[in-house]
Amino acid sequence: MLFHVRMNVSLPASMPADDAAKLKADEKALAQRLQEQGKWRHLWRIAGQYANVSIFDVDSVDELHALLTSLPLFPYMQIEVMPLCRHPSSIRSDDR
Amino acid sequence: MLFHVRMNVSLPASMPADDAAKLKADEKALAQRLQEQGKWRHLWRIAGQYANVSIFDVDSVDELHALLTSLPLFPYMQIEVMPLCRHPSSIRSDDR
Amino acid sequence: MLFHVRMNVSLPASMPADDAAKLKADEKALAQRLQEQGKWRHLWRIAGQYANVSIFDVDSVDELHALLTSLPLFPYMQIEVMPLCRHPSSIRSDDR
Amino acid sequence: MLFHVRMNVSLPASMPADDAAKLKADEKALAQRLQEQGKWRHLWRIAGQYANVSIFDVDSVDELHALLTSLPLFPYMQIEVMPLCRHPSSIRSDDR
Amino acid sequence: MLFHVRMNVSLPASMPADDAAKLKADEKALAQRLQEQGKWRHLWRIAGQYANVSIFDVDSVDELHALLTSLPLFPYMQIEVMPLCRHPSSIRSDDR
Amino acid sequence: MLFHVRMNVSLPASMPADDAAKLKADEKALAQRLQEQGKWRHLWRIAGQYANVSIFDVDSVDELHALLTSLPLFPYMQIEVMPLCRHPSSIRSDDR
Amino acid sequence: MLFHVRMNVSLPASMPADDAAKLKADEKALAQRLQEQGKWRHLWRIAGQYANVSIFDVDSVDELHALLTSLPLFPYMQIEVMPLCRHPSSIRSDDR
Amino acid sequence: MLFHVRMNVSLPASMPADDAAKLKADEKALAQRLQEQGKWRHLWRIAGQYANVSIFDVDSVDELHALLTSLPLFPYMQIEVMPLCRHPSSIRSDDR
Amino acid sequence: MLFHVRMNVSLPASMPADDAAKLKADEKALAQRLQEQGKWRHLWRIAGQYANVSIFDVDSVDELHALLTSLPLFPYMQIEVMPLCRHPSSIRSDDR
Amino acid sequence: MLFHVRMNVSLPASMPADDAAKLKADEKALAQRLQEQGKWRHLWRIAGQYANVSIFDVDSVDELHALLTSLPLFPYMQIEVMPLCRHPSSIRSDDR
Repeated sequence: MLFHVRMNVSLPASMPADDAAKLKADEKALAQRLQEQGKWRHLWRIAGQYANVSIFDVDSVDELHALLTSLPLFPYMQIEVMPLCRHPSSIRSDDR
Repeated sequence: MLFHVRMNVSLPASMPADDAAKLKADEKALAQRLQEQGKWRHLWRIAGQYANVSIFDVDSVDELHALLTSLPLFPYMQIEVMPLCRHPSSIRSDDR
Repeated sequence: MLFHVRMNVSLPASMPADDAAKLKADEKALAQRLQEQGKWRHLWRIAGQYANVSIFDVDSVDELHALLTSLPLFPYMQIEVMPLCRHPSSIRSDDR
Repeated sequence: MLFHVRMNVSLPASMPADDAAKLKADEKALAQRLQEQGKWRHLWRIAGQYANVSIFDVDSVDELHALLTSLPLFPYMQIEVMPLCRHPSSIRSDDR
Repeated sequence: MLFHVRMNVSLPASMPADDAAKLKADEKALAQRLQEQGKWRHLWRIAGQYANVSIFDVDSVDELHALLTSLPLFPYMQIEVMPLCRHPSSIRSDDR
Repeated sequence: MLFHVRMNVSLPASMPADDAAKLKADEKALAQRLQEQGKWRHLWRIAGQYANVSIFDVDSVDELHALLTSLPLFPYMQIEVMPLCRHPSSIRSDDR
Repeated sequence: MLFHVRMNVSLPASMPADDAAKLKADEKALAQRLQEQGKWRHLWRIAGQYANVSIFDVDSVDELHALLTSLPLFPYMQIEVMPLCRHPSSIRSDDR
Repeated sequence: MLFHVRMNVSLPASMPADDAAKLKADEKALAQRLQEQGKWRHLWRIAGQYANVSIFDVDSVDELHALLTSLPLFPYMQIEVMPLCRHPSSIRSDDR
Repeated sequence: MLFHVRMNVSLPASMPADDAAKLKADEKALAQRLQEQGKWRHLWRIAGQYANVSIFDVDSVDELHALLTSLPLFPYMQIEVMPLCRHPSSIRSDDR
Repeated sequence: MLFHVRMNVSLPASMPADDAAKLKADEKALAQRLQEQGKWRHLWRIAGQYANVSIFDVDSVDELHALLTSLPLFPYMQIEVMPLCRHPSSIRSDDR
């Protein structure tokens, strides 16, 4: 099942640079692992913003929530989830 | 170049059923042609809404606008475009 | 899987009373069938509004979308879907 | 009487981890006690957010307010309350 | 129990003047009956708008909904309900 | 003249508990004095929120503003004022 | 007492040109009479919009409402009222 | 040329009282000088808010921006500017 | 003086195609004349929308309003005006 | 390709004046270099706000994002990007 996820990141100005760098590195490592597993199907930067649009491919809403809350940047993100389904005009039976 | 496009469709209640059916069939035919050409990369239905989220892959903003305004349902859609770019944590150099 | 669905109904003032009555009767019949099947778990009226809050229990987003778009009032409703999951403080493993 | 309650939680970044853990444990204990008493009928996590949708079953608005303001996380929550009533298409005389 | 109700009225421009006058007269008659019964405690016009702020005093949310949907203008109103309770700084144990 | 006033209170998390308690006590004392004088006609808590809906009965807008800005919590409140007038369907010539 | 009033006008596309012209002429005549009486202190067009910002100087909210609802364009306007008072930095005791 | 300017002021809670008093005194002195010069034509307090509605009379947008940014409270204000022009129903050729 | 103008066009579905074509042709002719005169400095289409962003260069707000309201599509447009001024980091003394 | 970019700047009140001055000087230097290269085609101040409207002329969305995120003030700005294209009524084939 596919979910459209938008994440807006906002780190507090007072966070030490090292902490921020560590968080981002951990976030990147996990994001890449989830992409390799096919859970995080697409990951795009929104131009001009510290934000992304992502497509997740999971077996359940519980799995989606577990993945999102495991992200190191989760406490600093505003997240919006939109469930997607097959579009009748799609040429793919499974547009992932 | 990738663009995130959200289309909300709203046909007037007064439109004759045949006209609506014709419009939708034409829309579907063109949508599928554009998908086959690789211009319309992804097309998902938003659950519970007469709306979609799409990813377009075009050479320029002018091309994007020409494609969108050529859609038979264009006069009945509210469209929002968001330019996307490569995310530094993506595992793909070209996530289409 | 549970989904929180809010439906706001808005029938055009020009719809003949008989058509509206027929639509509502059909909607009620289907709504009750879906409740009996356990797909439509809860259905509450929002006080003072021609609107409801519902909880759907489905196997997939595609199933949810198919159910919602099969509702006779679907063309006259604005629908918002929010995916739910288990809350860590819930006393039920399966709060339906 | 049923009330639909949405709670968005936002702990200040500066709160010491121990204080946060204590608050959450207290919140969980009280939430579970209220569920066991049947006052807090449903409690669901909204996917991707530190937020919940709940259904409360109380005798009065005053009781509802007393319950909500007794929650340890109350000072850190934005809460919206929506009164619910029986839906004419519900198959239950008392959909709790 | 007290509920704060805001009603915005919007009659379609195409409604014949006689129908509108009849609706308003019926609405007024019922509104006054409910005030005399003490159900509709306060009724104020919002300056410059075809809208009112009202305070209802009812035994349950179901009763409130029944009253509101019985209003002749109900199909032409946008209604928002907000449950009220005793304020700790009020000098009245029962501020109606 | 009547004015509908909504006050949302938001004390900074960093305010010492004693200061907050003092502010609230002073606010309560003044609120009660104004109620006794008939200036602050109604004062209701909005369920689930640190907010109130109030009805003020004053001789002028200047008097209203003087009262509101004299409140100890004024610097911590977001206030919205809506002028009210007699509703033609009210059964009272003076619904205070 | 001064009130800041914003009026947005929206005539239905289906209104015959003569009716619209008559409405506007009547509106203008009354607007000018009220200006001459000093009730309608200022009347400015908002650039690029069929809308105005006005300052009314009235003895009560009831008078303000009576004036606004007597305007021929009232049924076609969305109106927002904001009560004004003396600013402590104003050089005028009575800035009308 | 006239511009409608709304200023919402928000001083940080951490600002020392003396600094705030100094800022406000400087702001008042400059506001009064600009009023005496006829640049700041009107200045009204919005009831219940630390905000004002003002009318500026300047020769150009650049002059308006220079005046606004010279205000001592400028860094603490959210400002919205709306260009005004003569209203065809105004009885004044120059309603300042 | 420069003004940033956003125009959203919305023709009623019921407008005959010939009328719409005539309106658009007249609009285009006037838009081009104003561009040639240097009054309408820039005119860009917003991708995916029947809307434009424009830069006008006029001597006064009154002139701007006269130009905008003279546009044949004016009754069918929602227009927002934002006054611009020289940016201190611009390399041009006069960025038109 | 042209992009319409709006930047709202918000420096934290706690930033030392020297740091702010340094940031602004660096921002100005880079902004001017990008203008000289023709990448940053227009840069206007929005009257009354610490904000600008800009037109960027870039070869791709990736280039646009790289430019915007290289700005020293980027961490303190809220940025909105809107893709532009040729307007059919423009008198220029290339309105930059």
